[in-house]
Amino acid sequence: MNYSELLREKAKESGSIVCMGADPVLERIPIKNGSVEEKITNFYKQIIDAAIAEGAVPGAIKPNYAFYAQYGFEGLRALKNVCRHVKEKGIPLILDAKRGDIGKTNAAYAREVFDFWEADCVTLSPFLGQDSVAPFVQWCEEKGKGIYLLNRTSNKGAAEIQNLECDGKLFYSIISEKIVKWGTNANGNVGAVVGATSIEEFERIVGFFVQSKASVPLLIPGVGAQGGSAADVTAAMRKAGYELQLARINSSSGINYAYEKQETDDFAGAAAKAIKQLNKEIGL
Amino acid sequence: MNYSELLREKAKESGSIVCMGADPVLERIPIKNGSVEEKITNFYKQIIDAAIAEGAVPGAIKPNYAFYAQYGFEGLRALKNVCRHVKEKGIPLILDAKRGDIGKTNAAYAREVFDFWEADCVTLSPFLGQDSVAPFVQWCEEKGKGIYLLNRTSNKGAAEIQNLECDGKLFYSIISEKIVKWGTNANGNVGAVVGATSIEEFERIVGFFVQSKASVPLLIPGVGAQGGSAADVTAAMRKAGYELQLARINSSSGINYAYEKQETDDFAGAAAKAIKQLNKEIGL
Repeated sequence: MNYSELLREKAKESGSIVCMGADPVLERIPIKNGSVEEKITNFYKQIIDAAIAEGAVPGAIKPNYAFYAQYGFEGLRALKNVCRHVKEKGIPLILDAKRGDIGKTNAAYAREVFDFWEADCVTLSPFLGQDSVAPFVQWCEEKGKGIYLLNRTSNKGAAEIQNLECDGKLFYSIISEKIVKWGTNANGNVGAVVGATSIEEFERIVGFFVQSKASVPLLIPGVGAQGGSAADVTAAMRKAGYELQLARINSSSGINYAYEKQETDDFAGAAAKAIKQLNKEIGL
Repeated sequence: MNYSELLREKAKESGSIVCMGADPVLERIPIKNGSVEEKITNFYKQIIDAAIAEGAVPGAIKPNYAFYAQYGFEGLRALKNVCRHVKEKGIPLILDAKRGDIGKTNAAYAREVFDFWEADCVTLSPFLGQDSVAPFVQWCEEKGKGIYLLNRTSNKGAAEIQNLECDGKLFYSIISEKIVKWGTNANGNVGAVVGATSIEEFERIVGFFVQSKASVPLLIPGVGAQGGSAADVTAAMRKAGYELQLARINSSSGINYAYEKQETDDFAGAAAKAIKQLNKEIGL
């Protein structure tokens, strides 16, 4: 099944377009026993299993590579375990690794991401241009895998580079055009990362994708701790006529560590509750 | 010792500003016995030891993360072994990982790169802006580590994004300005990746760095297989008055697999010979 079809099917099945970031911070994982690998693995297994048990399956799960790699091999083994569990449960797996190198090197990264980590989709940088992302696009075209290219990121300083005026347009608008162009033959498997923190830019980009009649899956970070609103981006997508089932609105620490705010020891139950709450805000 | 001081000292000590890329491609590694981890590890250990024995120590070694990660944990364990061997031999270690995420995530990547892999320096994407690279710059300022930001890459399609005209300047020129600005307090530890494949862009960027009186280490890929000339970029640096000892001119497959062209079984000796040849072309 194509990545874009997987997004649609799983959104229907689960009733959710929430993407749960899975970003381990050891100090916040309330499991006392076991190695680093075991703590991280068990933390996310329990959260995923609780979400399934309580009818709050997220529409995707997105481990961010950095948060595992910071713990060396123990962290990377935990990443492997988490990826396997996500796949076993049939939830779309987005590896957030922001890879980006020249073509030959990106071909090796594509093997890493799709063959080794067995991800359905990966985040990538567009900085090096079309020939650099071509090996990934080939996986989208031929094997139905997915990619999200950074388009307008959610960090506070994103405008410094991404809102430069280039050839009479904003830089991020040029990237949006490239995303549509590069993905022409990719069956809707080439998507864009567009942050929820700047609603003006978000509206403009979504409007452009709808007008261009390209099917561009959106990965939307920046909701929750970073200050963006799930309700606002959903409203913007509805207004533009964007197909909601193709979008994934991400929350990481807001779900992972929901137990802190809910003041409970049941971290897995708290995470499931946070997913339900976010589903409600989105109101699919 | 600061990264920029390390570059200077090692250039003097070895008489070389060659950076040996260490990019394993199993099919081209002529070692028949052992696991994937052992083959890759032994291949590079033997090359490094031969280079040292034959007085052809490279001015830096740069493993590209992708080429190890494509082989999963075996590849990553080999990367760890190669990194350790490079450090033991006192050669500057550049991890070519092109990391690039929002600030909080880049802080985790910095721990990965400097604490776990024990690299002296890492390649990064500037796409997300200053607040995103700030955690890495902090390591440069406070702990003397180094970074190279992608400025003008060596791939054929680099111009598509990097030569856009933005605010009346070329996009890569704006990135050069940012690199100088972001590195203001970083003691010359914030460098730039500038490919050898487009000599016009190369000259312009080096000229700008010299004029701005910023001490910006250059990492120069694209020599050899990709078509750039070590002699040409060296001449351009001399002409601009750039301090050569701060530069590193990279060759990966041209050194790693030099035995293929030299038609010998002695891959380690062939690599040492290729380093000597490149040193000669550069003529430090």
